[in-house]
Amino acid sequence: MANDRPLILVTNDDGIQAKGLRSLIEAVETFGDVVIVAPDKPQSGMGHAITVNNILRLNKSTLYPNYDAFTCTGTPVDCVKLAISQVLHRKPDVLVSGINHGENSASNVLYSGTMSAAVEGAMEDIPSIGFSLLDFDADADFSGSQWAVRKVMDKVLKNQFPKGMCLNVNIPQLPEGEIQGIKICRQAKAYWEDSFDKRQDQFGKPYYWLKGEFNRSDRSEDTDIWALDHGYVSIVPTQFDMTAYHAVSEINQWDI
Amino acid sequence: MANDRPLILVTNDDGIQAKGLRSLIEAVETFGDVVIVAPDKPQSGMGHAITVNNILRLNKSTLYPNYDAFTCTGTPVDCVKLAISQVLHRKPDVLVSGINHGENSASNVLYSGTMSAAVEGAMEDIPSIGFSLLDFDADADFSGSQWAVRKVMDKVLKNQFPKGMCLNVNIPQLPEGEIQGIKICRQAKAYWEDSFDKRQDQFGKPYYWLKGEFNRSDRSEDTDIWALDHGYVSIVPTQFDMTAYHAVSEINQWDI
Repeated sequence: MANDRPLILVTNDDGIQAKGLRSLIEAVETFGDVVIVAPDKPQSGMGHAITVNNILRLNKSTLYPNYDAFTCTGTPVDCVKLAISQVLHRKPDVLVSGINHGENSASNVLYSGTMSAAVEGAMEDIPSIGFSLLDFDADADFSGSQWAVRKVMDKVLKNQFPKGMCLNVNIPQLPEGEIQGIKICRQAKAYWEDSFDKRQDQFGKPYYWLKGEFNRSDRSEDTDIWALDHGYVSIVPTQFDMTAYHAVSEINQWDI
Repeated sequence: MANDRPLILVTNDDGIQAKGLRSLIEAVETFGDVVIVAPDKPQSGMGHAITVNNILRLNKSTLYPNYDAFTCTGTPVDCVKLAISQVLHRKPDVLVSGINHGENSASNVLYSGTMSAAVEGAMEDIPSIGFSLLDFDADADFSGSQWAVRKVMDKVLKNQFPKGMCLNVNIPQLPEGEIQGIKICRQAKAYWEDSFDKRQDQFGKPYYWLKGEFNRSDRSEDTDIWALDHGYVSIVPTQFDMTAYHAVSEINQWDI
């Protein structure tokens, strides 16, 4: 029998056990048929990494007995590729990734496994959305986020999704009633100021651990950071053509 | 005593032992003072991954006794961050990454650890260049590539480097005399058509290994793929603002 419900692929980078993933599934399940392929362990900060020099495993997950749910031993982008090729055997109608425990505004989009899964979906011409909550807590409250997910899903399914891009949705940690609205934004020019904890292990050998401070310097009104700082959900349409077109003519003048 | 020679940070994603790294060092060492921080093992396909949930080690490398050379246990982007923060204690004047064993044209830029190291440099406002040779062989001939590296380095040091971008340089596998020239290009809209080898291990359990075919479909004359197919070195100015500006007004019409 034919089924007109959209096929929704759900993934994330915090892993199958994350509360953010469960919250996302709850928010999207009324919109269509959900299939889950998520990493079997946390994969934060994996960016657009893929597993090329090793094998991948795909295992049925017992955490979601009512769904076709699988864990993958690889990265979020591996999950998307395996889901399309080996689980669905076709492209889903929508791909949603998240809800990430932590912000993916501004330049975080480059490091984010959540967003890289959505970018991979976009490269496959699938309407794709990454959702992130501004709260790293493993037990964060996702109720406001679920409101935002439903708002965005509704619009994505009712409109033509532009080619060559996905959506980067960041959600402030506010109850539904206090969220000011949803703003379409540009990626703020804001970066991490890196530092490392340098410590000695029990054998006296040094090791390093990345830390850093996120410099929220670019706060123009059209940025995702401005929107989030003012209680709005931010949506940045996110593409994967990284050409700096404005620089082509300048570099041509180098007469290389 | 003051030293006016530029400080050149060299990294890659194929690891400290790669012939491409040695070839790059040989090509740039006359331009300045070289410091090397490279992964201690192959890190191909790591994209913009960073190590957030684990420690990093930094070890003096014995492979390059005449240089300040270190291996890092992390990704190419980790190498850049550790180099600036813990090895150089300042930003280098130029960052070069590669020479990658294999092509990083078109959408490969997103998966490439070589290019992500250069993008990370750009985010730090360092003139940064990723070099890749269209030859995956571990013993590839890098002589034509070294000619291209010297040509590009010379121009980078003589000109103002535009802000907010790096250079993605791909080099055809040709002897120096047969390279047709150097072209400034855009990133071709060309993607991998993914598939997986599905096999059974010795215990009868399935495993998957990513393979795929690169679909060189977008061959317009302004693309990197066209340039490479016609014997030119391609240079794509590569930015990290992923906002799809052209889609902002369209999505605003969703009235979200």
